[in-house]
Amino acid sequence: MRPTLVAFALASLLALPALADQSKYTPTPKELLAQSTAREWRTPDPANLLDMTLPQGHVLIELAPDFTPLHAANIRTLVRGHYFDGLAIVRVQDNFVTQWDDPASDDNDTAHTRSLGTAKKTLPPEYTRAIDPKLEWTALPDGDVYAPQVGFSEGFPAARDPSSGREWLTHCYGMVGVARDIGPDTGNGSALYAVIGQAPRGLDRNLAIAGRVLQGMELLSGLPRGPAPMGFYADPRQRVAIQSVRLAADLPAAQRPHVEVLRTDSATFAKLVEAKRNRRDAFYTLPAGKIDVCSISAPVREAK
Amino acid sequence: MRPTLVAFALASLLALPALADQSKYTPTPKELLAQSTAREWRTPDPANLLDMTLPQGHVLIELAPDFTPLHAANIRTLVRGHYFDGLAIVRVQDNFVTQWDDPASDDNDTAHTRSLGTAKKTLPPEYTRAIDPKLEWTALPDGDVYAPQVGFSEGFPAARDPSSGREWLTHCYGMVGVARDIGPDTGNGSALYAVIGQAPRGLDRNLAIAGRVLQGMELLSGLPRGPAPMGFYADPRQRVAIQSVRLAADLPAAQRPHVEVLRTDSATFAKLVEAKRNRRDAFYTLPAGKIDVCSISAPVREAK
Repeated sequence: MRPTLVAFALASLLALPALADQSKYTPTPKELLAQSTAREWRTPDPANLLDMTLPQGHVLIELAPDFTPLHAANIRTLVRGHYFDGLAIVRVQDNFVTQWDDPASDDNDTAHTRSLGTAKKTLPPEYTRAIDPKLEWTALPDGDVYAPQVGFSEGFPAARDPSSGREWLTHCYGMVGVARDIGPDTGNGSALYAVIGQAPRGLDRNLAIAGRVLQGMELLSGLPRGPAPMGFYADPRQRVAIQSVRLAADLPAAQRPHVEVLRTDSATFAKLVEAKRNRRDAFYTLPAGKIDVCSISAPVREAK
Repeated sequence: MRPTLVAFALASLLALPALADQSKYTPTPKELLAQSTAREWRTPDPANLLDMTLPQGHVLIELAPDFTPLHAANIRTLVRGHYFDGLAIVRVQDNFVTQWDDPASDDNDTAHTRSLGTAKKTLPPEYTRAIDPKLEWTALPDGDVYAPQVGFSEGFPAARDPSSGREWLTHCYGMVGVARDIGPDTGNGSALYAVIGQAPRGLDRNLAIAGRVLQGMELLSGLPRGPAPMGFYADPRQRVAIQSVRLAADLPAAQRPHVEVLRTDSATFAKLVEAKRNRRDAFYTLPAGKIDVCSISAPVREAK
């Protein structure tokens, strides 16, 4: 049924080799990934993988303990206490975030607000961390509006400020942040949000980022926006029930997700960055020559 | 029912004055808009306003004839020929675009592909235009990854390159572009897309931008993502029917949308930019001090 003329339109972002001028042909992302080697992919630690089951399917989230270790530990505790099972997606604010947490807490229904169990109620903010030379740092070459340096660290989009010696994860599409109250220590991981629109980079260094959605992002982004202020679902029946959240490490082998993430310090990722900076297929009149840190992400695939 | 602790979280983006430290209190966007004067708002020309009726509601789009006059004229011709009535939203690609056009064309069903009527099949690209000193240009101060200068022109996010003397609209969230085939002259406005994710700025200067969604964006962004390649709906029944597209100028007075757009060269818009660059309410530990051209847009309100 496609491609067709009109359908092809934007589509050529996927670049069909047959239609490209071979003399200036550059490989497509799909071709670059096909040429990657097994060692360029890493298997996320199952202790860092959250498997959230919604009625529509699974959302897989990789925690980022290199950047937010106390939050990762608290979220693991919450998950192992089955804290999220039966909670819900409570708000979807257009061009901003999808958030899930305890609806009773949102409703100020203290009688029914779920206990955090043995998880901590407050945590140090973990908005930024001291630059760790042992962590991967793959810089992007084109600068950034918000930070002195941007790039990738262990698969996550990140920023650095050499003058302060700090680094932090950036609020790009698909990143998962820790909602909180006014106090910087009030985020504990019991309420999380995923970025579903233009990167709200003004949040960087003001909220802890817990990780990144690896699969199922479309289940969070493709929901009806909530009509109440801040995108809350005015009618509780609009909420999306969370059936369960489990750590991959705790699942029986047969139920475990098996995914691999392309290493962001690999040669193939560098080629992907360059291919996206300079689109040379026939569709493009003028390659941008630039890339924003939130305009590319580490590819994810099912493990063989 | 809110705000509550957890709900408040991200929410403080809306900054509740009662909770803010008054000594460093800065007005919220809502307060700034309440202080605006009538002359700071403009009423879009009804000849530039498209009212698209979907089963879920209305999507209002303002054309940008200052930048893409031939496309605006062709789209007006298509609309006045009722070209779009009965067509459909055919693809929703996550973190990219929602596109509407003639499904028969996508299906290569030439027997049922709709005629463009008196509209042109091809148009000059109109990707960029010579900088026009008569057009509004409200620069943003923080630079840009993709272009030498960014800012707003007549309410639309835009970029300039003084060295080439060209300016163009930017692919920010909610901008409406003209889908096309490989040939740069193949975009005619019969297939349009709205940006629903991180700004795909690599498309800038490679596609014509027809305008911007003023209202109803959530009806385009909150749709289920299509499962087929490029986000196409694999099953035609997943498509969203377009009941009609009309020019506001052609609607009976009682049915006409009445909206106003804050002038991007107004003092109030400048205050909004500054308030977003430097969030000083109690929620923020560290104001960004920066803003990206795609992180702010001209507010829209119902006319009184």
